[in-house]
Amino acid sequence: MNETLQTIQNHVSVRQYTDKKISEEMLQQILKAACSGSTMGNMQLFSIIVTEDEAMKRKMAPLHFNQPMATQAPLILTFCADFNRFNRFCEFRDAETEAYSNMQSYHWAVIDALIAAQNACVAAESLGLGFCWLGTITYNVDKFIEVLQLPKHVIPVACIPMGYPVEKPALTQKLPVEAMIHRETYHDYDQARIDALYAEKEHSEETAGILRENPDCENLAQVFTKHRYTKNDNEAFAKVLMETLKKQGFFADL
Amino acid sequence: MNETLQTIQNHVSVRQYTDKKISEEMLQQILKAACSGSTMGNMQLFSIIVTEDEAMKRKMAPLHFNQPMATQAPLILTFCADFNRFNRFCEFRDAETEAYSNMQSYHWAVIDALIAAQNACVAAESLGLGFCWLGTITYNVDKFIEVLQLPKHVIPVACIPMGYPVEKPALTQKLPVEAMIHRETYHDYDQARIDALYAEKEHSEETAGILRENPDCENLAQVFTKHRYTKNDNEAFAKVLMETLKKQGFFADL
Repeated sequence: MNETLQTIQNHVSVRQYTDKKISEEMLQQILKAACSGSTMGNMQLFSIIVTEDEAMKRKMAPLHFNQPMATQAPLILTFCADFNRFNRFCEFRDAETEAYSNMQSYHWAVIDALIAAQNACVAAESLGLGFCWLGTITYNVDKFIEVLQLPKHVIPVACIPMGYPVEKPALTQKLPVEAMIHRETYHDYDQARIDALYAEKEHSEETAGILRENPDCENLAQVFTKHRYTKNDNEAFAKVLMETLKKQGFFADL
Repeated sequence: MNETLQTIQNHVSVRQYTDKKISEEMLQQILKAACSGSTMGNMQLFSIIVTEDEAMKRKMAPLHFNQPMATQAPLILTFCADFNRFNRFCEFRDAETEAYSNMQSYHWAVIDALIAAQNACVAAESLGLGFCWLGTITYNVDKFIEVLQLPKHVIPVACIPMGYPVEKPALTQKLPVEAMIHRETYHDYDQARIDALYAEKEHSEETAGILRENPDCENLAQVFTKHRYTKNDNEAFAKVLMETLKKQGFFADL
């Protein structure tokens, strides 16, 4: 197995970082990697906000629900779906400027931003750094837009603190690869198959611990729907996201 | 520079593949890499459809506007945002099954699917394969759902043909990395900055060739808005995408 496959297959999320700063040279290598991926029509529909300033981290912290990764990491990269730069290019060249104010164009920019984000992650891990993705970026998308001063047609989609790991955690327990794979067409999951695919996870020590902490739940699925990601929370955050997409100009066609 | 950084930074899209098949062993390495990335709450909200069957490729070809990559490649991987598997898990464990029928949850699944897709791409390139992303997957999203038999809560977001390259093309001309980078807050682009960032691209041989082929356009921006990705086309495809997101159950909260 080559070095790249090893880096990718040994990925773990790291949530504690040492005080050591990431050098400007290393940051540039990560940013170069982020900007080297595929992009829709070579339009490069993304931007990366680099956060190193402590005051900025403190401003963002409550929006990340004060998770320690967001203040403790020496570096935070926020990847944005960005049609503003390309629209400016169109504006200054007397080309149509409202061609990309719709959800299809937003999707292209989301894809470009996430290709860049994952490239940055693989690059960072190959350099001995650790990171973890913060889901809070899409929860509080409206407030991050304010703090990061993002103009119309720019939406943050990934926020990734990075640093040198205090320790390298064990690999996360995942479903077997076959759970995600479908040959030729999608094969839906009946109860027997769900039971088989989730068996190892459901019978693990980790799950036993989670269930002890959540005595009102009979199983892992209920921990997710009753506590971790509830219908009410998700729908409230969905409303914010939809309003933000409209405000940022991606529903001009509707 | 390590091997992984080299692989990522030397990425080029490959559109012509030799007849050589990709071995099952190599396919498994790519799929393992795809399934090793970060994922929202360890829910693994994605599926990968593996296409090798010639009849399936012929069915998909018109939906990819008959681009030769879609029929000529020995392997096509379609990455889907998938909340169906997790919802089934909830269903079979007497947990709430409508917690994730909203746009916030859809976004998590899109992120998971694209992390998997880009991991697969980096892995493939490290193994000497070539690939290119097909934007057509989000244009004809409704028809791909039919052909791939995707159930509710599954949406294809990336489609990537792969194979051994006939030749390794030259690196694509991109904007300088600094064009995408913002320190601490977003710095919007005025005309002078757009002029500077696009200068090399606008004055290249490639752009000169494109403008000769599009005599009704004064500049590269107009080639995009008048011909490549027009307002009318984008808005028509946006309508299909929105209707599909509703039909697949991601707007149950509205």
